[in-house]
Amino acid sequence: MQERFMAEAIAMARQGVALGHGGPFGAVVVRDGVVIGRGWNRVIADTDPTAHAEVNAIRDASGRLGVWHLEECELYASCEPCPMCLSAAYWAHISKIYYAASEADAAELGFDDRHIREELQCSPIRRSLPMQQLMREEALEVFAQWRASELKRHY
Amino acid sequence: MQERFMAEAIAMARQGVALGHGGPFGAVVVRDGVVIGRGWNRVIADTDPTAHAEVNAIRDASGRLGVWHLEECELYASCEPCPMCLSAAYWAHISKIYYAASEADAAELGFDDRHIREELQCSPIRRSLPMQQLMREEALEVFAQWRASELKRHY
Repeated sequence: MQERFMAEAIAMARQGVALGHGGPFGAVVVRDGVVIGRGWNRVIADTDPTAHAEVNAIRDASGRLGVWHLEECELYASCEPCPMCLSAAYWAHISKIYYAASEADAAELGFDDRHIREELQCSPIRRSLPMQQLMREEALEVFAQWRASELKRHY
Repeated sequence: MQERFMAEAIAMARQGVALGHGGPFGAVVVRDGVVIGRGWNRVIADTDPTAHAEVNAIRDASGRLGVWHLEECELYASCEPCPMCLSAAYWAHISKIYYAASEADAAELGFDDRHIREELQCSPIRRSLPMQQLMREEALEVFAQWRASELKRHY
């Protein structure tokens, strides 16, 4: 079964390359032995730097199911997820990740997210992407608005 | 100027809360003093765990401009970006991030991404989200296909 689903993730990657949609990466989300979401890298096709295979597969699955959590779902990715995709899997409450190629394999191909991994581990002031805080109080007013809202849902 | 753009990011957050679209978070992308992308949290509205304000603002900006890199663009976020959004900013080549509320403020409200930060720093085998590798060779065949493709573009 695991091989069948990974073969599907890899087939997504192959399709994306054939179409020139982006990097050679595919993913599927599986629940109860059924593929419920598919994605491949569409960074170039969609001119969207966030359109990685795993993000697309998670969006596809959660959109189809109408849920924002994918508990008891497994993510099959043709390559080890980058920090963005791994974080997305946590936000989605994915229960297990299977991957095929490693981040080292991807780096050898020129897709090196090691830099991002290292930056995330730095304290903010040491990062290459500078960050500056301003207007905290104004943002906290919206937090209070949310806290008082009857429409709020936790995720 | 910085205050004007942050006020717009906070206005996006306020709008999202009023509409019940998701958490109290907004963001804008700015280039050359002009807002070129807007987003607010739509996790609930879109049933999409990746629909954070910063991701949405980056997607909006890159989609409008038809580019997959937002060099010389600044991201204004009403709250300190989570690891997914921070990674997205790196992939997008954002040059600077301004934020208002802190991650500690968000955690106090119940949006605690500290868990994800900690998990990303763990070695894979110690993470709460298990990962397993399989079929590496098959994925590497698609890497080779990409390498040979005339359609390939680096991002």
